[in-house]
Formats: sequence, structure tokens, C-alpha cells
Amino acid sequence: MEKVNVAEKFDLFSNYWSPKIAVELNDSCIKLVKMKGEFVWHHHEKEDELFLVVKGRLLIELRDGEFRIGPGEFMVIARGVDHLPVAEDEVHVILIEPKTTLNTGNVVGDKTIANLWKI
Amino acid sequence: MEKVNVAEKFDLFSNYWSPKIAVELNDSCIKLVKMKGEFVWHHHEKEDELFLVVKGRLLIELRDGEFRIGPGEFMVIARGVDHLPVAEDEVHVILIEPKTTLNTGNVVGDKTIANLWKI
Repeated sequence: MEKVNVAEKFDLFSNYWSPKIAVELNDSCIKLVKMKGEFVWHHHEKEDELFLVVKGRLLIELRDGEFRIGPGEFMVIARGVDHLPVAEDEVHVILIEPKTTLNTGNVVGDKTIANLWKI
Repeated sequence: MEKVNVAEKFDLFSNYWSPKIAVELNDSCIKLVKMKGEFVWHHHEKEDELFLVVKGRLLIELRDGEFRIGPGEFMVIARGVDHLPVAEDEVHVILIEPKTTLNTGNVVGDKTIANLWKI
């Protein structure tokens, strides 16, 4: 067992839209991801996904609305719900979801990252 | 679906050692808890438990050592591991664990809270 300093872990990588595994517990995984720019519309068939912003401001577009999430705020995107994360400037996000959740959900393409690194 | 501001949720209650449910997703639950003073030695038989500190400094004593966790830091206490949370001053903590996890684990007593409120 070890203590994890979130900011120090974010200093270890710089690539965007490439979640890293910080720790696994029970059926969940704590992933850290840097976002900048617009991602792709997608959903996760069987998994809810939590976005907790630690730095910057994240826009999450939904088909029928949008949410803007700042530091110290989080939201859960329920399974099956289409969403598009957009980061005008760099955003640091803690994701909580199963280890097996694909970053692009149902839309497998050039932004899909199948094998996540542990940091 | 709604956005959750963690600090605003902590403003909604003041009692210590009484976790509140912020949101559930997949098999996990995000709980918010204020700690002050010394809790009780306990472990969780089948569940790993994540402590993410958002305010203050938390001491987690283990049988063979201790960890001090500050804001922006977290650690996972693996299932079966005895631990004693100690908060010299008030600490605000996000817990990630199954909904069914009892706050006192294997040590049911006057500090046990069986039915958690949703906030």
C-alpha cells in the first residue's frame, strides 16, 4: 500500500486523452487523464463513468444539454448516455470506472487506447 | 444526471464519522465524511477502501506503520488490513467503496452507522 499524490502523478505524463491507471480497488479503477481539445462523441454500453476535475474546466456536451465542471466538482455519466468531453484549455481529470472501460466507448477508432499504463 | 460540487456538499452536514452518499456508480459508492478525533481499529473483510483527502490532514495508522495524507492525496486500504483513522483537526474525505461497506468494518459498535443518508 502506498500514498498517491495526484498532482505528482499528473507531472509524470503529458499526452492528452490517454488515461493512466493510478490504482485499482474492488471492481473499479482510478484513472488520471489530461484533456485538451475536443474528444469524440461516444457512450459506454455497460459502465457508468465518473469525471472529477482537479485542474482546469471541462465541458461535457450531451445530446440534450451540457455541463461545465471545474476543480472540486464531479459528475457521473450513466451507461448508455452519449457524451462529448471538450477542454478549451488543458484539464486534469480523475476518472472512476471499471478497468475495462474503453476511453472511446462504443466508437473504436484512432483515439481508442486499449492498453492503459499504470503510473 | 447532475454536477456535484464537493465543497458545497460538505457544507450540508457537520457530524463526524458519519459518511454520506454523494453518488453511486457501477458497484461503487462515492461517500463524503468529516473526521475529527480518533476512530476505531477495524478492517473490511471483503472490500478495499479508498481515502481521498480534500481538506485537512489525515493520519491512517496500520499495525506495522502509518500514513499521513493531505489534500490532493489518496490511498487504498486493501481488504483485510486493520487501520485506524485519526484526525487531529477536522478532515474532509472522499471515500470510494461499495455502498454496503460498514464504516466500522468488522467492529460493530456505537460508532457503526448502518443506514447512510444521500446528500
